[in-house]
Amino acid sequence: MEIIVQKFGGTSVGSVERIKRMAQHVIREKQKGKEVAVVVSAMGDTTDHLTKLAGEITAHPPKREMDLLLSTGEQITIALLTLSIQEAGFKAVSLTGRQAGIRTDGVHGKARIKGIDPSRVREELHRGIIPVVAGFQGSTDAGEITTLGRGGSDTTATALAAALGAERCDIYTDVDGIYTTDPRVVPAATRIPHLTYREVLCLADSGAAVIHPRAVFHSKKSRIPFRILPGLIKGEGTLVDDHIHINDRGPVGVAFKDEVASISMKDAAYGLESLLKESLEVIHVKPDLHWKGQDLTLTVDASDRSDVEHLLRDLGQEYSKKMEQAKVTIVKSPGSDILRFGVRSTLGDSGIDVSSIHEDPEKVTALIGSEDIYRAADVLHTFAGLDVSGAKRVVR
Amino acid sequence: MEIIVQKFGGTSVGSVERIKRMAQHVIREKQKGKEVAVVVSAMGDTTDHLTKLAGEITAHPPKREMDLLLSTGEQITIALLTLSIQEAGFKAVSLTGRQAGIRTDGVHGKARIKGIDPSRVREELHRGIIPVVAGFQGSTDAGEITTLGRGGSDTTATALAAALGAERCDIYTDVDGIYTTDPRVVPAATRIPHLTYREVLCLADSGAAVIHPRAVFHSKKSRIPFRILPGLIKGEGTLVDDHIHINDRGPVGVAFKDEVASISMKDAAYGLESLLKESLEVIHVKPDLHWKGQDLTLTVDASDRSDVEHLLRDLGQEYSKKMEQAKVTIVKSPGSDILRFGVRSTLGDSGIDVSSIHEDPEKVTALIGSEDIYRAADVLHTFAGLDVSGAKRVVR
Repeated sequence: MEIIVQKFGGTSVGSVERIKRMAQHVIREKQKGKEVAVVVSAMGDTTDHLTKLAGEITAHPPKREMDLLLSTGEQITIALLTLSIQEAGFKAVSLTGRQAGIRTDGVHGKARIKGIDPSRVREELHRGIIPVVAGFQGSTDAGEITTLGRGGSDTTATALAAALGAERCDIYTDVDGIYTTDPRVVPAATRIPHLTYREVLCLADSGAAVIHPRAVFHSKKSRIPFRILPGLIKGEGTLVDDHIHINDRGPVGVAFKDEVASISMKDAAYGLESLLKESLEVIHVKPDLHWKGQDLTLTVDASDRSDVEHLLRDLGQEYSKKMEQAKVTIVKSPGSDILRFGVRSTLGDSGIDVSSIHEDPEKVTALIGSEDIYRAADVLHTFAGLDVSGAKRVVR
Repeated sequence: MEIIVQKFGGTSVGSVERIKRMAQHVIREKQKGKEVAVVVSAMGDTTDHLTKLAGEITAHPPKREMDLLLSTGEQITIALLTLSIQEAGFKAVSLTGRQAGIRTDGVHGKARIKGIDPSRVREELHRGIIPVVAGFQGSTDAGEITTLGRGGSDTTATALAAALGAERCDIYTDVDGIYTTDPRVVPAATRIPHLTYREVLCLADSGAAVIHPRAVFHSKKSRIPFRILPGLIKGEGTLVDDHIHINDRGPVGVAFKDEVASISMKDAAYGLESLLKESLEVIHVKPDLHWKGQDLTLTVDASDRSDVEHLLRDLGQEYSKKMEQAKVTIVKSPGSDILRFGVRSTLGDSGIDVSSIHEDPEKVTALIGSEDIYRAADVLHTFAGLDVSGAKRVVR
C-alpha cells in the first residue's frame, strides 16, 4: 500500500481544538486507502513558554539541557494528536524521535539526521496503526536527546518520507502555499502552484521562511514530492518535485533575510575558502562566500556570527565585520536573464544603499541595510515581473 | 566517596524560584564532600494541566499515551533544576528515566521498577557531575515510556539509592516530616522523629500519603535509611531505618483512606484467596483481604474496583459491593495491646457506624462510611494516646 507522510506544525496544532481538526486530515487520507505516518511539532506557544522558564534561570542555557527541555513540546503534541485519532475510532500510536528511530549527530540545538531506522514505524503501519512521530527531535547513538533547530519538524517529515519510500509528503502549515514573496510584506505576492526542489532550496537558502533547506534536501535526494498545504482552510497549496514544466522559466520569487552579518577578509590566502567551508560545516554554519578580487566576504545569520569570529581568531585570520545587514535575493530559473545591473539600478532608484551584489545562474543577491529590507523586497518583486498574476514567471 | 540521593517533589519544585532554592540543598551536600544524585518530580501544576488537555479530547485516554504525555512533566523539571545547579557554578546533567537506566515492566500508569542500570549515573558521579534524574518514569526493554503511578518519584529515589549503594536517601517535600496523622485533619498530630521501615510501610499501606509503599519497599530491602525533610523550611524531619529504639513501643499513628470499595463473597471457595491475590498482583492491585467465617471481603482503592469486578466476573464468582467506604487504621508496634473492642466502642461512642473491624499484630483497621472519616481519625488519635506530645508512643 502507498504511504503518505503528513506533517502538522505551527499554529495548526496551536490548541486542542485545532489538533482535533488535524486528526481529520489524517483520517481522510486513511479512508482513501493510504497508509499514513504523521509528524508533528510543538503546540504554538509551548517552545516560547519553556524557553522563558529557562531564561528565568540563566541567560546562556547549555544546548544539551535546552534540547532535553524543548523536546517535551512535541512529545505533548504527539500524545494529544494520537488521542484525537483514537477518539475518532482509528488506531494510532505516538512515538518520540528516539522511538521512531530518528538518529542524529550530537550537535545540540541544530543536530542533523544521520539516518532513520524506520522499522518501528513500518511495523505499526503494517498493523494498520497510524504512527504519530515527534518532529524536530532525535537521539544520538549514545541515547542523548537532540533537536534539529529551526524547521526541524519539516526535516523529520521529509526524511521519514524518504526512509519509508513514501508516495508523497504533505506539510500542513498556517499558510496556503509558497508565495512569490512574503505576502505580509508585499501584498502583490501570489501563490506558486508548482516549484522544483532546486527553486525551493534556493528560496529557502535565501531566507524564505516557508520551509527549511534541510527539509528540501531530504526530498530532493529521495525524489519524493512534497506539498505545502494550508491546515485550517481548503487550498491546493504548492507542489514541489523535480519536474520542470515548459512554462517554468523566469524569475521565481523574491526572498529576504534580516539579521545577517557580513565578515570580510582582505587579501585572503589561497585555500582559506575551503578551510572555512569545512570548519563551518562541522558546526553546521552555512555561509554565503563571495570573492571580490583578493577579498573574501562571508555572509552568515547574525546568530552564527560569534561562532565564525571565534573560528577566525583561532585561525589567526584578521577580518572586519558589518552587522545590521540584510540580504534580498531574486531566485530565477537558469534560463532567465535578470542581471545584477538591473537589480542595482532598481534599488538605487529607490534610494536604497547596496553594499554588494552577487549573481549566479540561480539568483541575484543584494546586501543592504536592515532598515531597507521590506522596501527592497517590494521594488524587486515588481522589477522581476512577479506583481501581476498574469505576468508571473515569464521572462522579462 | 559516599553518595547521597536527594529527591525534590510536590510544591517544592512548584516554580522556577523554588527550583533555584532546591539547587541550594544539592550544593550544600556537595560542599560537604558527598557525591549527590538527584531525583525530581514534575512542577506542581504540570500534571494537572496535561491531564486536563487529554480530558478535552477523551474521557478514557489509553494509559500508554498518558504515560508518554505525563512523563514530559519531570523532563521539564530535571532540565530546569540542572540549569539552576549549573548557574550556581556546579556541574550537572539531566537524565530522563530511560537515560538513568530505570527499567520497568510494561504496566502503563503504574509500572514497577524491574531493575536499575546505574552505569550512566555512576559515570557522571565519578566525573564530578551531579546527575539530575526524572522521577516517576522509566522505560521498558522495548523502549516504551512508562510511569510508576502515585508516589512514583519517591520510588525512583529509594530504588536509585539502593542501586547506587547510597549512604542515605533524603526526600524533600512540602511537609516537615511524618506525623502521627494528617495534621490538616487532626491539629493535635505531632511529628515522629524516627520510624522503622515496617511502621512506615504499615502507615503508607493504610493510606498515609506521606510516602508510597513501593518507595519504602526499596529502602527496606536495601536497608538504606531515608529521611522525609521539609524543602522550604528548616527542620529535622523523620528518619526511617530498621533500628528499633527501646522506647518505640505503642501506637505509632493513625492513617485513613477515603474512596475505598469493599467487595464481599459469601461461602468463598477454598483457594480463592490465593488465586485472587496472584491475579490482582499481575495488574498491581493490592487488596486487604479478610475472612469472616466462610465470607471473604476485599478492600481496594475505588479506582481499582472495576478491575477487581472484571476479574471476579471472569472467574464466575458472585459478589456484593459496598462503595463510598473509608478505612481508618491505628498502626502499632508489635508489643502494643490496642484491641479491636476498644476501637469499636470508641467509634460507637462517637456515633460512627462501623461496618467491619480487623486486627493483626501491626494494626487495627475499621471500615466506616466516607462521611465519618475525619471524625474517626480524630477520636482514634485521642484513643491511641497520640494527642499529647508527652504521652506519644507510650503503651496505654
